[in-house]
Amino acid sequence: MNTIEKAAGPSGAPGPDSEEFEEGGIGVRRASMTFGPDEPLALDSGVNLSPFTIAYETYGALNADRSNVVLICHALTGDQYAASSHPLTCKPGWWPHMVGPGRPIDTNRFFVVCQNVIGGCQGTTGPKDIDPATGRPYGLSFPVITIGDMVRAQAMLLDRLGIRDLFCVIGGSMGGMQVLQWAAAYPERVFSAIPIATAARHSAQNIAFHEVGRQAIMADPEWKQGAYLSQGTTPGKGLAVARMAAHITYLSEAALHRKFGRNLQDRESITYGFDADFQIESYLRHQGSTFVDRFDANSYLYITRAMDYFDLRATGSFRRRTIARSCMR
Amino acid sequence: MNTIEKAAGPSGAPGPDSEEFEEGGIGVRRASMTFGPDEPLALDSGVNLSPFTIAYETYGALNADRSNVVLICHALTGDQYAASSHPLTCKPGWWPHMVGPGRPIDTNRFFVVCQNVIGGCQGTTGPKDIDPATGRPYGLSFPVITIGDMVRAQAMLLDRLGIRDLFCVIGGSMGGMQVLQWAAAYPERVFSAIPIATAARHSAQNIAFHEVGRQAIMADPEWKQGAYLSQGTTPGKGLAVARMAAHITYLSEAALHRKFGRNLQDRESITYGFDADFQIESYLRHQGSTFVDRFDANSYLYITRAMDYFDLRATGSFRRRTIARSCMR
Repeated sequence: MNTIEKAAGPSGAPGPDSEEFEEGGIGVRRASMTFGPDEPLALDSGVNLSPFTIAYETYGALNADRSNVVLICHALTGDQYAASSHPLTCKPGWWPHMVGPGRPIDTNRFFVVCQNVIGGCQGTTGPKDIDPATGRPYGLSFPVITIGDMVRAQAMLLDRLGIRDLFCVIGGSMGGMQVLQWAAAYPERVFSAIPIATAARHSAQNIAFHEVGRQAIMADPEWKQGAYLSQGTTPGKGLAVARMAAHITYLSEAALHRKFGRNLQDRESITYGFDADFQIESYLRHQGSTFVDRFDANSYLYITRAMDYFDLRATGSFRRRTIARSCMR
Repeated sequence: MNTIEKAAGPSGAPGPDSEEFEEGGIGVRRASMTFGPDEPLALDSGVNLSPFTIAYETYGALNADRSNVVLICHALTGDQYAASSHPLTCKPGWWPHMVGPGRPIDTNRFFVVCQNVIGGCQGTTGPKDIDPATGRPYGLSFPVITIGDMVRAQAMLLDRLGIRDLFCVIGGSMGGMQVLQWAAAYPERVFSAIPIATAARHSAQNIAFHEVGRQAIMADPEWKQGAYLSQGTTPGKGLAVARMAAHITYLSEAALHRKFGRNLQDRESITYGFDADFQIESYLRHQGSTFVDRFDANSYLYITRAMDYFDLRATGSFRRRTIARSCMR
């Protein structure tokens, strides 16, 4: 670990919550890194975000030639806790079957890094953090971010950690978008890329689902035009509805049928009322209500927006390389 | 028309808003019929709904042997104005290409009946109407209704109009469920049945979309536990989100792609904000905001519930006939 800490620049000291511990046979380092005014994050929108912090975890050890790095990119509502217990929910990491000793992403072989995305709410700078210009939470004054911005911030952290090359970058859904973006924007740094269950751009239907979620949040009067943290409210009902709408898409229609069908929830027959008679209703309500305890509504707006905006065709190096290849034919 | 009015029973006089006019070459009769305490609607829940009113339209003329009746059943947010201008929105009827002189449902040949469903909000008794027991709008004290109840009420109106046999019963989506229910519950009255774009029961995914819509309405603090009419509020934001979620399902993913793709709305490039940059966002917002002007939020709850509950297997005569046929083999 010395290599890493030595590589940290003047504003790159581990945050006060940096800690190392072992969990499930994995050496976990839970840390955050702040980038000061001298190192702003140049966003695609043209805005420079500064200062900003990235919260991240590492598992395992970096080898001597720094060639064993696997970067895990998380999905929309994911976080850096891929293989360690979530500090808020106390639930196990979100990718336990994939990350660990002897598992596909073998923490005995690889040095695994997982970062909370920019705009997120698990320690990396996002709309719930204090805007130094006002002393109040950013809310909607936080700049709109993109998948490109998320990846650019990840690269800055890796630079700071002294890591140039990625043996592999891997992730699903929005994590897969980041993987594609990594391969397009930093092809010389990526040896292998594993984008899972993802897309090079959102379809109209993808955007539609996200827009319903955003409108559900914004329709909640507790949202307060995004200033709910300053005003002491929580748009939990709107966020829960957004989560419910999104959850419809997380299982295929066939899987929903297999898992729930028209099964009733703890009852023999319909009740002629508006309780959750069907298991699918109970499931969605549960997903909605538990989500609001661990996620920030404005982060949900910003991150869904980044996904909708993402279009791999627009990424510079991808475009150049594609054109170059076309010309060679 | 004399035949019809003569057939009306003591409580079956045309309502005060009964009128006849011609529109688009169609003789339209716009009317309502009230069923008094002597004729309750026996609901599947076991509740007797009484009194109740059915608002309906007829087009064309009943022939001498009453054999030319076509019953049109409307969808979730449809109404009885299949071929005449909607009195609230002033828009043309919702099925202009299908209903009219020389059209598939030829008003020169057929006597066409279209009724607003029970639980609806266009004149037929529903949750926005006054509960005679309290003198206040029903709200959530309105009994939960089913597709079977809708059809039973339709049959009562037809009985009152002196109509036994249907040359055809036709409708799409929830209208198609009613068509199936007609064929199953009253096989001796139905000569032909045309269920369009419908299902014998909702899948888990169908229920999920409706549940998101219901939760969006109930999450709106203006909903007031269903008592918004008494309290002078309108859960318009929640209802708009419900409508947006439902609209995702009204076009296939392929059709959404063809119609909208990732096209931007009146702009050259993304704005890095939360305005409706994409056409699909603008479309959904428009669908949501216009819907609340013409629809009642509680009706939306009740009618979606009826659709979710619908299961053709549970309909008595269908079940009996299916069993009988099985035994004959």
